[in-house]
Amino acid sequence: SSVSTPIRATLFPGDGIGPEIADSVKQVFNAADVPIEWEEHYVGDQIDPRTQSFLTWESLESVRRNGVGLKGPMATPIGKGHRSLNLTLRKELNLYANVRPCYSLSGYKTRYDNVNLVTIRENTEGEYSGLEHQVVRGVVESLKIITRQASLRVAEYAFHFAKSHGRERVSAIHKANIMQKTDGLFLKCCREVAEKYPEITYEEVIIDNCCMMLVKNPALFDVLVMPNLYGDIISDLCAGLIGGLGLTPSCNIGMGGVALAEAVHGSAPDIAGKNLANPTALLLSAVLMLRHLNIHDKAEQIQNAILNTIAEGKYRTADLGGTSTTSDFTKAICDHL
Amino acid sequence: SSVSTPIRATLFPGDGIGPEIADSVKQVFNAADVPIEWEEHYVGDQIDPRTQSFLTWESLESVRRNGVGLKGPMATPIGKGHRSLNLTLRKELNLYANVRPCYSLSGYKTRYDNVNLVTIRENTEGEYSGLEHQVVRGVVESLKIITRQASLRVAEYAFHFAKSHGRERVSAIHKANIMQKTDGLFLKCCREVAEKYPEITYEEVIIDNCCMMLVKNPALFDVLVMPNLYGDIISDLCAGLIGGLGLTPSCNIGMGGVALAEAVHGSAPDIAGKNLANPTALLLSAVLMLRHLNIHDKAEQIQNAILNTIAEGKYRTADLGGTSTTSDFTKAICDHL
Ligand SMILES: CC(C)[C@H](C(=O)O)[C@@H](O)C(=O)O
Ligand SMILES: CC(C)[C@H](C(=O)O)[C@@H](O)C(=O)O
Repeated sequence: SSVSTPIRATLFPGDGIGPEIADSVKQVFNAADVPIEWEEHYVGDQIDPRTQSFLTWESLESVRRNGVGLKGPMATPIGKGHRSLNLTLRKELNLYANVRPCYSLSGYKTRYDNVNLVTIRENTEGEYSGLEHQVVRGVVESLKIITRQASLRVAEYAFHFAKSHGRERVSAIHKANIMQKTDGLFLKCCREVAEKYPEITYEEVIIDNCCMMLVKNPALFDVLVMPNLYGDIISDLCAGLIGGLGLTPSCNIGMGGVALAEAVHGSAPDIAGKNLANPTALLLSAVLMLRHLNIHDKAEQIQNAILNTIAEGKYRTADLGGTSTTSDFTKAICDHL
Repeated sequence: SSVSTPIRATLFPGDGIGPEIADSVKQVFNAADVPIEWEEHYVGDQIDPRTQSFLTWESLESVRRNGVGLKGPMATPIGKGHRSLNLTLRKELNLYANVRPCYSLSGYKTRYDNVNLVTIRENTEGEYSGLEHQVVRGVVESLKIITRQASLRVAEYAFHFAKSHGRERVSAIHKANIMQKTDGLFLKCCREVAEKYPEITYEEVIIDNCCMMLVKNPALFDVLVMPNLYGDIISDLCAGLIGGLGLTPSCNIGMGGVALAEAVHGSAPDIAGKNLANPTALLLSAVLMLRHLNIHDKAEQIQNAILNTIAEGKYRTADLGGTSTTSDFTKAICDHL
């Protein structure tokens, strides 16, 4: 189902290598004739009082209006009085689920060749509440907050995702043997949702055991759903199994159907502007954005072109042990289209 | 330095396969002429009001009096009104540090052959405070508590361990970019202690990144020190790298020099009593107990006998893909002595 009226999407090229890899996305989208019109927004150089961060109000409005966006790495400026850019985006856009498909790439060999899973992370609460207190000198506490609303919402998303992507099992990851009330509530919500999806196998796995199983045999897992911090940890662990954050796409799902796809690796200031960056994570994230928009034919074409280029192994950036520039690699992908 | 007056040590054989693997330890210690006299204690069949758990007061007194103990797996009985056995032991004996050496075993192949690290976990506070509240219906919170006292104590232990074991680097694992006050205090304490050990390299690694690096290249790490939950997760992840909890020893260090070594795997009720269990984790834990007692000659002999038996690969229990019984494997180790 090809689309012809152009769809507007917000693009945050981001910092460091961000503009170069965003350029790679633009080139590949052009070559594939994707009917997307980018609205580009950069991080400001001063705090916008309306967002309390360097993100401009206009850029957030742009994502809200368009409903979709793509984001490169953003380096939060050091200093007080403003919030992390990533956290601000999640909060302001109510991005409640972070979805990361993670699969072994043929042609890029790691210790694992059988990874094919999706981590779905609650993205708004838990250990990220920001509520911390010094109780008395030398005693500090952080509050982990788990709500029924956010837990049900991410569980719903996970089961819906599993079903609509032909996946068979959802594993809820937790530490309810220790945090009986918080993680217990999370599990309770997952169980409630699981009942509505009898065709999906549901299981619960304690996080320490989950990490051990993941490194022993990741093929045991399919879709994983979990509270915020566990998702942070496990999604990076899984990325490590297949080669690292330079290769794994990510998409944040917000209320009202908003989706912000993003490369979750850093901005790599040391190689910025040198045409050395690997655009794979941002390209595959852009593919997730297309799938969210139901532009499946283009998504499929582009994903195949990326995966085939990597599988061939002729063009490979330095992080993967090759000598190609960002432009060479991008051109190779375009040639595959 | 051989010891001749017998030293008393507490032994908790534990549940399930516990008694069989504890038997294996006794046989190996006999064969090696280790001057240990065991004081055996079992988990009670009713709650001892003085411990609020199935652990008897006498058994705790025994560890306190002897200063050392060895513990098999304990299955906490299901039901309300009593505390987890493991947590009770940690609390009552003030076992503030959990130490797990983790190294690739030659002869037992996994995806990794270059693991040689030690995880040191704060064992008394953090996410394990047990303080949880329902704030309003559908909103629950857990308190993570970090104190200067417990953080300094475990940091001291980690640096002392590194120095006395000829290790070069200590990595503090944290999420202080999100939990600035709690994990921030933990890091502050690690930095203070690091200053007293200029010969040890000190670094700080964010937990998500740490897990990614561990699965990509565990050789990057040496000694890791971290708050309770991160230690729970990472120590199991590391065990997974070299084959699982059946192969990794563990030792808990308490105030006043108490040490309780333990196998951290489960009690495996399905194979209990069948002479099928792998005693390796408990045997290697017993070796840690001997090292704690400075009985290094016997520790070395027994450790070599265990590792050589595994390296030879002739006797191997079912969990490692072999067909040996617990007794055969134990006898093979004794023959190596
Ligand atoms: C940069 C950091 C705040 C962030 C997080 O912890 O969520 C990152 O690790 C991620 O996973 O997006
Ligand atoms: C059984 C459980 C309470 C325990 C923990 O979480 O500490 C276990 O995972 C461990 O690592 O000893």
